[in-house]
Amino acid sequence: MKASIVTIGDEILIGQIVDTNSGFIAKSLDRIGIEVHEMLSISDSREHILDALSKLQNTVDLVIVTGGLGPTKDDITKKTFCDYFEDKLVVDEVVLAHVTQLIEHYFNRKITQLNKDQALVPSKATVLHNQYGTAPGLWMKKENTVFVSLPGVPFEMKYLIENAIIPKLVEEYERPYILHKTILTYGQGESLVAERIEEWENSLPAFIKLAYLPALGKLRLRLTARGTDKKMLEETISEYVNSLDDIIHDIIVGFEEDETIEVILGRMLSKQNLTLSTAESCTGGNIAVMITSVPGASNYFKGSVVAYKSEVKVNVLGVSSKLIEKHTVVSAEVAEAMALNVKTLLKTDYAIATTGNAGPTKDDTGEEVGTVFIALATPNDVIVEMFNFGQPREKVIDRASVKGLEMLLKEISKKEL
Amino acid sequence: MKASIVTIGDEILIGQIVDTNSGFIAKSLDRIGIEVHEMLSISDSREHILDALSKLQNTVDLVIVTGGLGPTKDDITKKTFCDYFEDKLVVDEVVLAHVTQLIEHYFNRKITQLNKDQALVPSKATVLHNQYGTAPGLWMKKENTVFVSLPGVPFEMKYLIENAIIPKLVEEYERPYILHKTILTYGQGESLVAERIEEWENSLPAFIKLAYLPALGKLRLRLTARGTDKKMLEETISEYVNSLDDIIHDIIVGFEEDETIEVILGRMLSKQNLTLSTAESCTGGNIAVMITSVPGASNYFKGSVVAYKSEVKVNVLGVSSKLIEKHTVVSAEVAEAMALNVKTLLKTDYAIATTGNAGPTKDDTGEEVGTVFIALATPNDVIVEMFNFGQPREKVIDRASVKGLEMLLKEISKKEL
Repeated sequence: MKASIVTIGDEILIGQIVDTNSGFIAKSLDRIGIEVHEMLSISDSREHILDALSKLQNTVDLVIVTGGLGPTKDDITKKTFCDYFEDKLVVDEVVLAHVTQLIEHYFNRKITQLNKDQALVPSKATVLHNQYGTAPGLWMKKENTVFVSLPGVPFEMKYLIENAIIPKLVEEYERPYILHKTILTYGQGESLVAERIEEWENSLPAFIKLAYLPALGKLRLRLTARGTDKKMLEETISEYVNSLDDIIHDIIVGFEEDETIEVILGRMLSKQNLTLSTAESCTGGNIAVMITSVPGASNYFKGSVVAYKSEVKVNVLGVSSKLIEKHTVVSAEVAEAMALNVKTLLKTDYAIATTGNAGPTKDDTGEEVGTVFIALATPNDVIVEMFNFGQPREKVIDRASVKGLEMLLKEISKKEL
Repeated sequence: MKASIVTIGDEILIGQIVDTNSGFIAKSLDRIGIEVHEMLSISDSREHILDALSKLQNTVDLVIVTGGLGPTKDDITKKTFCDYFEDKLVVDEVVLAHVTQLIEHYFNRKITQLNKDQALVPSKATVLHNQYGTAPGLWMKKENTVFVSLPGVPFEMKYLIENAIIPKLVEEYERPYILHKTILTYGQGESLVAERIEEWENSLPAFIKLAYLPALGKLRLRLTARGTDKKMLEETISEYVNSLDDIIHDIIVGFEEDETIEVILGRMLSKQNLTLSTAESCTGGNIAVMITSVPGASNYFKGSVVAYKSEVKVNVLGVSSKLIEKHTVVSAEVAEAMALNVKTLLKTDYAIATTGNAGPTKDDTGEEVGTVFIALATPNDVIVEMFNFGQPREKVIDRASVKGLEMLLKEISKKEL
């Protein structure tokens, strides 16, 4: 079964917002063995939508359209669906009751005509209940293709995908078997890893595909097997993962799809019963945010002192002002003192500290933009490294945060080996 | 001039990564008056790429392709370009020298054959220098369409767009004039605002288009004017912005495209010479991260205490443990104490504090998932509000952070009126 995902919205085509809906839908379809053939983003124009629908007609089995179902005038998907299916809009009483309840009960105001219009649906459509919003999902079939229309608001779209679309597809369609296995590595670049595993890669059978997915500091290797013999696919992919592990065991840190460094660290810290704190200057709390994005982080993360101004480094963290004067605030010495002091203040086993200049301009320390000192205090020691992460500001903050976590990962991994 | 943006990569079609490149390219093209007709994401397959290129041939003037230029075997865009243009790959000596220098000097290791292959380019291509990476950009023309191939690594792609593609387009092509004006509002929903401005919206001339762009807590109204008479467009759009301001002055907070609440707050705090600190529990430092994402934040932001565990609330922030026992850690009283104490500790004019349960499960306080208390300490007072942001965890953290900043915005705006 093949699908296409269509996103409607001028705001996407002028780059004002990034389309994250298509990725979510693709992942959901992939999990149940539906192949996404392509994703398309088009404008809020009737002609463009009609053209896209008719081109996809009978070339894929499923078209999922998001966007263009809101209450305001620039939203035209519903009307265009009506034209395409030669249908007319009728009031759906269930939707009307839901919209009325949502507006009057939860938002605590009178329902408007624009709200009421949300209950108008094409008469031939199967209406999909949208618990979290006023625009329902629509499911319509023409010849060999099912067309689904969903609201563009991400959490409403997610609700409909998870609670209506996926269950309906699983029930009504037969699908092939797709198996992904992701190997997460840290510390070596794409081309170096490619050289190391070249022979292994050449030995892969045709039904297993390898993809290199590099990202900030990490490289994921993704194996995808596709076929009908589930057992054989699972066994074969598992053999190849094992033989890969033999070759690059030194850089493999995990096998979970989408597993982030903060999740891996969380598991390791929990398992070893260790605690962590951070003292952040140029990263502004971003390391703490990454760590606490993981449910259950309170098992190992106690907190952070975001010491953005020097006076906070002195007054809260107890870094000596003489030390700052002598070495400047962006220095190995200050990073070290921050890490040691926050470890003591928050009574943790490990502490990460950052101080640097994220830019965009040179600060009064005269340090180059992008220079960051990262210190890691361990139970018995403190390690400091200096980096230059270049520009822009956002990249400096992201890289410094990931690098701080990597320094900790390296240190705790030693204990696990 | 019309463009299409094509992203190549299986990892996008299975939802493993979100395509943010297309948005960046679209925004860059939009700024110089090039209309993006559509965006397309396709698989790493030769046939699919060839099919996309030939369908776009002569339907748009410009096709920008990203992805598929990396050093590893699943990257095939360059070879497919060769096929499509009936061309062959030749070594580009300038690229080879650059790749060698980058690998041997900066990455400090021997160049591999895979690295060297990056210097192979189609003989008919104009080669675009990629300062930040090993894969160059390619510019090729066939009949009425220019095809550009760029690496998929975001900062390499950005470098090439800003330093090679945009300057070349500006120099070589005439473009119409496009003018956007964004009005940023806070506090009222899409349909309510639509009702308030209905009459005004109906009076817009045909060459000005209005879009409603709702996002977390805010609603942007975007006016787009398109034409050839630059002066007339600017005057007309300015008139309409003024008459809109008369109608919804109470909810307008800014006019800058992409202006975030943290930027608006930063400007207001700087102007009024005020300082801010935060004490964060369930938001884990996210408010500090939002604030420090703005260059120059050190003018008004001193720092934060991320008190994730109760003991940090007691030991660092000096919240009384009796107060926590009496009211539980997720309570108005604790939020209030956190805000007041961090304001004193960091010596600031304002302080924001959060305590809540971000989920995914009920914590030991027994508070519902999504419950968050947010306190704002002002120079003379403290305000506490209770919210339920529902699920999932990520949404609770985001909404609580934005809401905390909104409470501050509301308070400082009063002073400005």
